[in-house]
Amino acid sequence: MKHYIGAASPMRAQFEPKAGYQAEHFSWAFEAGVGTITLNRPERKNPLTFDSYAELRDLFRALSFATDVKSIVVTGAGGNFCSGGDVHEIIGPLTQMKMPELLEFTRMTGDLVKAIRHCPQPIVGAIDGVCAGAGAMIALACDLRYGSPATKTAFLFTRVGLAGADMGACALLPRVIGQGRASELLFTGRAMTAQEGHAWGFFNALHESDALLGAATAVARDLAEGPSFAHGMTKTMLSQEWSMTIDQAIEAEAQAQAICMQTEDFKRAYEAFSAKRKPAFQGD
Amino acid sequence: MKHYIGAASPMRAQFEPKAGYQAEHFSWAFEAGVGTITLNRPERKNPLTFDSYAELRDLFRALSFATDVKSIVVTGAGGNFCSGGDVHEIIGPLTQMKMPELLEFTRMTGDLVKAIRHCPQPIVGAIDGVCAGAGAMIALACDLRYGSPATKTAFLFTRVGLAGADMGACALLPRVIGQGRASELLFTGRAMTAQEGHAWGFFNALHESDALLGAATAVARDLAEGPSFAHGMTKTMLSQEWSMTIDQAIEAEAQAQAICMQTEDFKRAYEAFSAKRKPAFQGD
Amino acid sequence: MKHYIGAASPMRAQFEPKAGYQAEHFSWAFEAGVGTITLNRPERKNPLTFDSYAELRDLFRALSFATDVKSIVVTGAGGNFCSGGDVHEIIGPLTQMKMPELLEFTRMTGDLVKAIRHCPQPIVGAIDGVCAGAGAMIALACDLRYGSPATKTAFLFTRVGLAGADMGACALLPRVIGQGRASELLFTGRAMTAQEGHAWGFFNALHESDALLGAATAVARDLAEGPSFAHGMTKTMLSQEWSMTIDQAIEAEAQAQAICMQTEDFKRAYEAFSAKRKPAFQGD
Repeated sequence: MKHYIGAASPMRAQFEPKAGYQAEHFSWAFEAGVGTITLNRPERKNPLTFDSYAELRDLFRALSFATDVKSIVVTGAGGNFCSGGDVHEIIGPLTQMKMPELLEFTRMTGDLVKAIRHCPQPIVGAIDGVCAGAGAMIALACDLRYGSPATKTAFLFTRVGLAGADMGACALLPRVIGQGRASELLFTGRAMTAQEGHAWGFFNALHESDALLGAATAVARDLAEGPSFAHGMTKTMLSQEWSMTIDQAIEAEAQAQAICMQTEDFKRAYEAFSAKRKPAFQGD
Repeated sequence: MKHYIGAASPMRAQFEPKAGYQAEHFSWAFEAGVGTITLNRPERKNPLTFDSYAELRDLFRALSFATDVKSIVVTGAGGNFCSGGDVHEIIGPLTQMKMPELLEFTRMTGDLVKAIRHCPQPIVGAIDGVCAGAGAMIALACDLRYGSPATKTAFLFTRVGLAGADMGACALLPRVIGQGRASELLFTGRAMTAQEGHAWGFFNALHESDALLGAATAVARDLAEGPSFAHGMTKTMLSQEWSMTIDQAIEAEAQAQAICMQTEDFKRAYEAFSAKRKPAFQGD
Repeated sequence: MKHYIGAASPMRAQFEPKAGYQAEHFSWAFEAGVGTITLNRPERKNPLTFDSYAELRDLFRALSFATDVKSIVVTGAGGNFCSGGDVHEIIGPLTQMKMPELLEFTRMTGDLVKAIRHCPQPIVGAIDGVCAGAGAMIALACDLRYGSPATKTAFLFTRVGLAGADMGACALLPRVIGQGRASELLFTGRAMTAQEGHAWGFFNALHESDALLGAATAVARDLAEGPSFAHGMTKTMLSQEWSMTIDQAIEAEAQAQAICMQTEDFKRAYEAFSAKRKPAFQGD
């Protein structure tokens, strides 16, 4: 397991994930403000390895500083999203580890979810076929999720003898689909069908497989053309208010929105409205 | 922007919103324990202004002391609920303000939501047609919500370059419709159809436009005839337990319910049950 | 009202609810790792009394130490689940009590919910017919819930002049079915139909009455054959993370899952996978 070092300066990341970035363990593309991450080991349904976890964590951490990247699409190659932690490359070694190493691993996987939640860009999941284990958690960590009628999402940690409590599942899943449905999925490990996922609010919409990535990318482009500073504040507050009281949340939003009212994008929107044209947001 | 002063005594409000109350910026009616607030600038789809925000806040604050008012209906005139903050009267001036004034504004709008949540009366929204921006937040702050098949609810802050974090939206909306659906509405600003709103739990039911206010008022009357002290405790606890642990919430309810068991209404219910008649609750 | 004393040692319960246990106020059966509690006063639709509350609380507390019991089914005899606190045996006496006794009662009922949430076994409700008041709260405290098309679930505290805040309802119900629907049920006391309960995520599935207990027991058996130490951790964390921040929850799960990765069941699962056979979990 390689150790990746964080940003050298509090205001800059170690690397800038823009057009020139070459990822080692997945593919990265960048166009029109939208970064696209594709898990691409399709012959094994895009499993995660120690190295791909770490690189994903570092990429999402670096995205906090990548002001050119306005939104992100996460998807998988070959008709599947992600089969989760690889049995031979991850589960096997874990059964041999002692506690400090085990905790280093579970913290790394949790840090990936934290990094997805903490970068300011809205993250759009395009989730087809198999979406299992840690893959289901990456999907759950996205802001918006689109599936196909064939997507099968399974929080199957129990099937390998583990708890449903993995990477934040017991906190995040109940808030998305309800405590009772989340309990069933986490205790039994059974797959949620795409239709259930849509009816329950896990997926924002379903699209046929051949249209899925295009539809998710179109949403990401629309978001990239929006007021991205304000989008970042929306994302921050959706996490930040998670366990506040109602009154604390309202005060927090009074401050957050007052900050956004000092952006140029707010003025641009008003001027465009007055001139009866569409605003051209610039993210500042 | 006028400044309204709070109650002169901790046990009394500055004014009593009963039958005699004349609101300046909306209409107020009071009958059979039910107060009805009607946003009534129908030619502009009932927008909010600095003054109407402040008067609504003060009315809901005063309602904490208005023991004759047992429940509230909030609605809009002319087939629409509320188009939100007026672009010319609110958005324009805000683009010119400095931070202290901006924060005074965002805190005032937040204080309206706080006041709606803090008064003891159950609030029933009758929400037809356009329900947008701050109007959508007033709807969201209600306890029960009824729509028509034509209601369109949009948290469209992003469309004017702002964050979805406005008046508590990032805290309240996820708990009503789920975190994933709330994220979509807040990031994209798209309208939620009435049918979605019903399926997702935003609306408790839909009624045709011409029956909507009557249906909502009937619910409010039923509530007004109920045990209103206990209703006030239900409302308090629904907010109060928002971010408690489960065990804290259970202890809080043990105390809250023990208080309610000392009301006359509890005895009235038992006596009515024993006599096989309907209880006549009096709210004490 | 009898007073029951807790366990004599921090590591042992006062009694062991296994095959030999004879409950006084309901029936208890134990087979293949699954304990079944049947509320059995069918001629009155299985109401609760002071004594049955206390015995249920003590049973669930003792189940924390009953390592042979891997999962629990809770059901009612005669086609109904539970009609709640008995009007003559509970409501009547309560109207005569002073505050210390009232609080002793509301804390006892709350302690039952706490005990259901705190024992490590997944609890499966088989809920037919009438499910009302405290009965609805016992159903809500279960991890998984199965109903029949005829199940009627009513949080009808308001009908006896009380608050909806009873045994944790204002905390638990909104997280299961959403804040808006929970508000309606708690303010009005109206019955939720089985179909609503299924669509809203209260019931995981509906089965015809004659198949209901069998279906719930089959789920409980599957769970009993699963990794029960890990199941206990799933259950603990679903409650434990209730009001944590997202980052706190992720760290808590990193620790919880690292603990589970040191169980034999995790190794058993990996070895079974490698040998292409089904794992035989033993709960350690």
